[in-house]
Amino acid sequence: MRSIPAPKTKRGLARRAKILRAAEEVIGQSGFSAATIADITRAAETALGTFYIYFTSKEEVFHELVLEMGRTTRASVTQAVAGAADRLEAERAGLRAFLSFVEERPALYRIVEEARFVDPDAYRDYFSSFAEAYADQLRAAAGAGEISEGDAEVRAWALMGVAKTLGERFVLWDDTPDLERVVDSAFALIRDGLAPAR
Amino acid sequence: MRSIPAPKTKRGLARRAKILRAAEEVIGQSGFSAATIADITRAAETALGTFYIYFTSKEEVFHELVLEMGRTTRASVTQAVAGAADRLEAERAGLRAFLSFVEERPALYRIVEEARFVDPDAYRDYFSSFAEAYADQLRAAAGAGEISEGDAEVRAWALMGVAKTLGERFVLWDDTPDLERVVDSAFALIRDGLAPAR
Repeated sequence: MRSIPAPKTKRGLARRAKILRAAEEVIGQSGFSAATIADITRAAETALGTFYIYFTSKEEVFHELVLEMGRTTRASVTQAVAGAADRLEAERAGLRAFLSFVEERPALYRIVEEARFVDPDAYRDYFSSFAEAYADQLRAAAGAGEISEGDAEVRAWALMGVAKTLGERFVLWDDTPDLERVVDSAFALIRDGLAPAR
Repeated sequence: MRSIPAPKTKRGLARRAKILRAAEEVIGQSGFSAATIADITRAAETALGTFYIYFTSKEEVFHELVLEMGRTTRASVTQAVAGAADRLEAERAGLRAFLSFVEERPALYRIVEEARFVDPDAYRDYFSSFAEAYADQLRAAAGAGEISEGDAEVRAWALMGVAKTLGERFVLWDDTPDLERVVDSAFALIRDGLAPAR
């Protein structure tokens, strides 16, 4: 995909960022096909032509938003997990951070899901690179005895599936999400599984 | 959505089913917007006009496919689970049945995911009704001591997230899916969690 180099001035960076935020809202709301560049520049309170100073197409803005979701979720989970005493505590903190992120940026969640159809390579890259880093951490934690041994790759994807689905059901669909309940219950399942006490 | 009553003759039922199968392939492959009714009737080896004997619109066919995914996954999971000795065994059998279903009908998986954007009510209904029945079973199993106590609703959605995400990653994306590996590893996580042995 052809793309325009990032602007060099502060003002340019701010205008590009404003267009991206507007695109996030508009595409998250209407979906990729229905959203027009005119809708985006209107929401950004800028002239239609300004869009083309920073982006070549709607596809490019969309792609950029998927990359941003990747960078931002990863940064917010990494930060949340940094202070955790061990991997189990990190699992809990990471899940909580992800659900909070979905609450703050619901449009980005929808955009990444729509990428499955609009920009499948970006969709795959987003989840695959997250999963790879996640599996590395699970492997290291099992090595250190902080969690049990197990297939780190399958575990990483399974746990991502938990976070993603709970985010949709209990954050996007609920008017007043109760994150504590969801994190507590899901974490109990992640830590101990379904097996009855022996 | 307006819909045409099901045909009364065997021949009519067979032709309607053939169009549905063709729609599943074509829409699963090209996505809802790109797929045309002409593509569908061509794949069904029938005249364009025949489509309108059975369906009013592409939207109606799509909706019908989402309903079918609901009926069929539920039937295949229920059947797989019927012989299980207890809930843990049922979890394993259900996960296996779902992944096999994704392997057999990959297009349906994509159609349900696209429903998030094309037919959001059908999307929600599909997952919500599945989750409700699932939570009931988890509640009953906890009552019977077959699994530990826990929030059945959060558990149901979390476990659906596991199945759905593993289906995408290890069935849809893999040329030669290794279902046994995925089922074994995921089931170990579902049963025992990540906690190290004490």
